[in-house]
Order: sequence, then C-alpha cells, then structure tokens
Amino acid sequence: MYPESLEKLITCFRTLPGVGARTAERYALKIAEMDAEQVKEFAEALLLVKERLRYCRICGNLCEGEKCEICSDSQRDTKTIFVVSSGKDIIAMEKTGEYNGVYHVLNGLISVSKGIMPDDLNIDALLKRAKDAKEIILATNTTMDGETTAMYLEKLLHDTYPDLLVTRIAHGLPSGGLLDYADEMTLAHALSDRRKMKD
Amino acid sequence: MYPESLEKLITCFRTLPGVGARTAERYALKIAEMDAEQVKEFAEALLLVKERLRYCRICGNLCEGEKCEICSDSQRDTKTIFVVSSGKDIIAMEKTGEYNGVYHVLNGLISVSKGIMPDDLNIDALLKRAKDAKEIILATNTTMDGETTAMYLEKLLHDTYPDLLVTRIAHGLPSGGLLDYADEMTLAHALSDRRKMKD
Repeated sequence: MYPESLEKLITCFRTLPGVGARTAERYALKIAEMDAEQVKEFAEALLLVKERLRYCRICGNLCEGEKCEICSDSQRDTKTIFVVSSGKDIIAMEKTGEYNGVYHVLNGLISVSKGIMPDDLNIDALLKRAKDAKEIILATNTTMDGETTAMYLEKLLHDTYPDLLVTRIAHGLPSGGLLDYADEMTLAHALSDRRKMKD
Repeated sequence: MYPESLEKLITCFRTLPGVGARTAERYALKIAEMDAEQVKEFAEALLLVKERLRYCRICGNLCEGEKCEICSDSQRDTKTIFVVSSGKDIIAMEKTGEYNGVYHVLNGLISVSKGIMPDDLNIDALLKRAKDAKEIILATNTTMDGETTAMYLEKLLHDTYPDLLVTRIAHGLPSGGLLDYADEMTLAHALSDRRKMKD
C-alpha cells in the first residue's frame, strides 16, 4: 500500500527485535520526515558498526580493536573470570564498581526451544582460558536457559579441571524485595542459600 | 560504556519515536549481530526513502513520483475530497473499499500545545482544490486537535466557498461497542447524531 521504497524500509525495521508492522511503519514515516543529512548519518552509523565492531579475541565481548578495553587493562585480575551471556551484562556489572576480574561472553545461552546448542556459543575459548584461572564465576541469567547453561558449564569445567573453583552468582530476594511478592523459586533459593549473620 | 561506533548507532535509534535508551541498545546490538549484507541493505533502504519519496503535488500524500497513485487514477471521483491528517489514514480508508473519491493530506493537525499552526499544514493547496469540488469530507481524528482542525477548516472553506458542501465523518459508538464502556463524549455524539431507522 505504501510506495515501494517506504515498504522496503518498513521490512528492514521489522527485522529489529520486538518491532511489529505498526511500529516499523511509524519508524519509516519518521525517517521520511527527517532531513537528508540526518538520514545519511543514520545510514553511515549502521555501516560503521558493521565495519568496526569485532569480538574481542580473548573474552568474546564486542569491541573495536583486537582486544576489548577490559582485557587490555593490566590492572585487572585475569585469574578470575566472570561468565555472562551478553556484553550488556558486563556493562551492568561494571557499573557496580565491585569487580576487578575479567569477563567471558558466551554470546547466547543454551536453549533447547530455540535450538541453540553448546557448539553455537563461545565455550571452547572459555575452556582454554580456564586452564590458568583460579575461579570461574558463572553469571548467566537465573532463567531456565541461564540455569541450563550454568549447569552445563559447571560439569564441563569440573570434568576438565577437577581442582578449579567454579561458583554461581547468588540467587535470592533482590534489594528492597518483599517476601509476599516474590515467586516460589526465588523464595526457595533465598531459604536454601541463607547465610549466618555476623555477631 | 559501549564501543564508539555502537554508541553512535544507539544515538541514531533514539531519534525514532518512542525509542528509549534500552530499546535503542537492543536494536544496535541486533545490528551488530546481523550479517554485513543485511546491514548494507538496511542502510541503502534508509537512503532510498530519502532519495525517492516526495509529497504528491496534488494531495500531499507521500509518493515516489510527481503524483500519487490515487491522484493518477482517472477512475476516481475528483469532486469529492476526503481530508486526513496523515497518509496512514488513507491506507486505513482504502482498506474499507467504500470510497471512490480522492484525498487530501494535511500532514499534521493544528495543535496549540505543540505550537502547530494552520500555516504549518498543507491547507493552501486544499483551498485551491476545493474550488472545483462538490464535497469536502473532514476526516481528521476525533481528538482535541482533530476537532480543532476540522472546525478551523469548516469555517475557512465556508467563508471562501459559501455554497460548497463541507461534511464531517460521523462520531458515535464503534462497531461492537458497549454503551456502558463508552466515554461520555462518545455517548453524547451517538445521541445527538442519531438517525431515523428505515421502516
């Protein structure tokens, strides 16, 4: 129904996550309204991302050079590896300012329903890095796929390096959490992972 | 926190309507994952829209040539003009298959709060077209801005062509509408615009 070039752009926008027909239409109409300079900038930004971004050859995070900033930082403790599913998680963790080790990005999670198998993830590199590590912290999400991936990695790491310390981030009530709003799984974890209070 | 090229793309996505920091981030990360060919296509689609799209010189709708498809169609009744705020409304109306006249796109609505004045809209061209018309159907939304615009146009058209028939699309309960769910404005319109039933 729309002119061909507009329909084409709508189709492109629909490939973005969570974008349906209506939203894609709104985006495309907005582009049609923008001035040419702005649209040119947008198109160039798209191409630049594809041209410049690489996966860090050590941890698998997105970066612009050979190695990401964290892996290039000699101040970080390379013996402790925090394993996450995506680069977004690194940003969240770095904001806490509480962690001085390095990261490893799986770029996905094992998912039976989506057909994502261990071979599709950045696991081989983790296994090699783990050789020189003191602790591997499994910090995949506490969702079904996240738990599955953590269990898989725990077994794999343990089988390969029986003496390596493999830990899982704590499950429990979030800060400010109300008991009567928490789901059963969270409450069960909060109970089983309880710890002794200091005197 | 993200590599520079990714941050730049996130900024671009944020210029789209309703896109906040989180959504822009998700879109940009999706682009980083796509294969280069697909991203190139996306960038080209953006530029093509800007290069090809024009406003139809008759009705003001977006199109790729001098005149839009509807204005180029000799089968349409050019004496009846259906006035809408945006090209999207034409698509909605055409889907009904009930209308054989032509359209006029204002490309906006008069809005005091947004500072949009009659001069910012495609009204001069409407006034010229109205000279040869038999009926002007004002079909702006039944929102505050839509009603304001309709009232403004009605007065302007009536002052310029006292004999021209100017109508407003009907207000009332939508199909399948429940009386006890309808707002007061809708019910008041449904009452005042009631019509005699056929025997």
